[in-house]
Amino acid sequence: MKSNWKVGILGAGNVAVHLVNGLQAAGVEITVVYSRTLAHAQELAAKTPLAYATASLDLRQSPEADVYLVTVPDHALPLVVSQAKFPAGAMVAHTSGTQPLAVLQNLSPNPIGVFYPLQTFSKEKAVVWAEIPICVEASTPHGEDLLLQLARQLSQAAVVMPGQQRQQVHVAAVFACNFTNHLWGIAQQLLQEVDLPPQILGSLVKETLAKALLHPPFTVQTGPAQRQDASTLQTHQHLLAHHPQYQNVYQALTQSIEETAKKT
Amino acid sequence: MKSNWKVGILGAGNVAVHLVNGLQAAGVEITVVYSRTLAHAQELAAKTPLAYATASLDLRQSPEADVYLVTVPDHALPLVVSQAKFPAGAMVAHTSGTQPLAVLQNLSPNPIGVFYPLQTFSKEKAVVWAEIPICVEASTPHGEDLLLQLARQLSQAAVVMPGQQRQQVHVAAVFACNFTNHLWGIAQQLLQEVDLPPQILGSLVKETLAKALLHPPFTVQTGPAQRQDASTLQTHQHLLAHHPQYQNVYQALTQSIEETAKKT
Repeated sequence: MKSNWKVGILGAGNVAVHLVNGLQAAGVEITVVYSRTLAHAQELAAKTPLAYATASLDLRQSPEADVYLVTVPDHALPLVVSQAKFPAGAMVAHTSGTQPLAVLQNLSPNPIGVFYPLQTFSKEKAVVWAEIPICVEASTPHGEDLLLQLARQLSQAAVVMPGQQRQQVHVAAVFACNFTNHLWGIAQQLLQEVDLPPQILGSLVKETLAKALLHPPFTVQTGPAQRQDASTLQTHQHLLAHHPQYQNVYQALTQSIEETAKKT
Repeated sequence: MKSNWKVGILGAGNVAVHLVNGLQAAGVEITVVYSRTLAHAQELAAKTPLAYATASLDLRQSPEADVYLVTVPDHALPLVVSQAKFPAGAMVAHTSGTQPLAVLQNLSPNPIGVFYPLQTFSKEKAVVWAEIPICVEASTPHGEDLLLQLARQLSQAAVVMPGQQRQQVHVAAVFACNFTNHLWGIAQQLLQEVDLPPQILGSLVKETLAKALLHPPFTVQTGPAQRQDASTLQTHQHLLAHHPQYQNVYQALTQSIEETAKKT
């Protein structure tokens, strides 16, 4: 087992912030934080006593690390890959759910990998790292083992996962998390329009989740689309007439529920 | 305060089953259960020792009740209203989220009302009545008070709510509950295709809900649509190519998140 981890962080967004908090709490040393905006790197580096802040992608000039976690947005990965210089032998892993491992291949001969934490990270809220699945992948078994060990410093749910599975998990997470959050936002907006507090749906939302964790969700689907209640569907379309955006969402989901009901 | 309640139930679906269970546990007497299929009425009536089962809509011929709760599907309400005969003076209330109070007006001179429990009811799972908002409405203050008292036998969250608010709550509930359940079903299906268990998303789903209960969901929206991550959106469309149904849902929700992000 490796100890005395030294980790470098590239990027200073939500993922980076929560990684720094989690790694520091786990006793892992953050040696360097890079951001193209130095002030952002400094702000994040200030969270941990030993970290150096830099806006230079020549990481050989900063205090070195064994593993560099590249948390920049997907579209910025090619630029980082083409410009960054890492110390010889250091592992470089990105944290994207969607990007293939191969996006890092031009960093060879450095070993490369993926370190994807399956969670929604916002500035507003701390996360419980111990329960977060961390999906790792690497170009060599040794690299995989290294990333798995690092992931286990943070979480009890670290797994090795090939890129194809990770991509599919990411799409599934968009449906299960990003899209449901948006639907709750729409529900809250509709309640506000008639002066009702969001809490009135609290019991219903919790029960829906409890049920979905016990039974396959398609088998416990309820509501007007499921029971082909044309009169209610029509009333709802009418009620949403001043929200064409929500009407469109309503129609797409209703249609999908109807199609699923036909198949099952 | 009224005591010695006598309640009649029309319909024998999920709402009726859970109402009978809840009312019986609260010590309310169910005098009669009607279903157009006698066997269904009998099956439900058997859950409570004193209930009479009938397939006749002339409820004057069955043991009488003070309040009749009409739980039939919305499309069956007009038929029940045109054919049913209730004892003089008995309150008749439907349990629909969408139908107006006025759908019962031909039952005059019987007092009429609405008794809408805001919950998702499935055969598979018991519910905690104490926490379920029950939205009541009636044609007279006296009727409203009667239904509110009955609702309080079941729940600590009973409220008087005019029809316009109730309709809007129902649409909001479809977004917050029925649609999110369907999204969880899609996510589970996508995971199954790559041999992953649904539990891998458990931590993420719980965190998403915890965050949405703390902050207005639109303000904590994350994901590729929110951050305008065109490359990920494109990869996801590609991954969903063999699921045009899910692709359609993905597009509608992505578009709605993008439009909301522009406004806020």
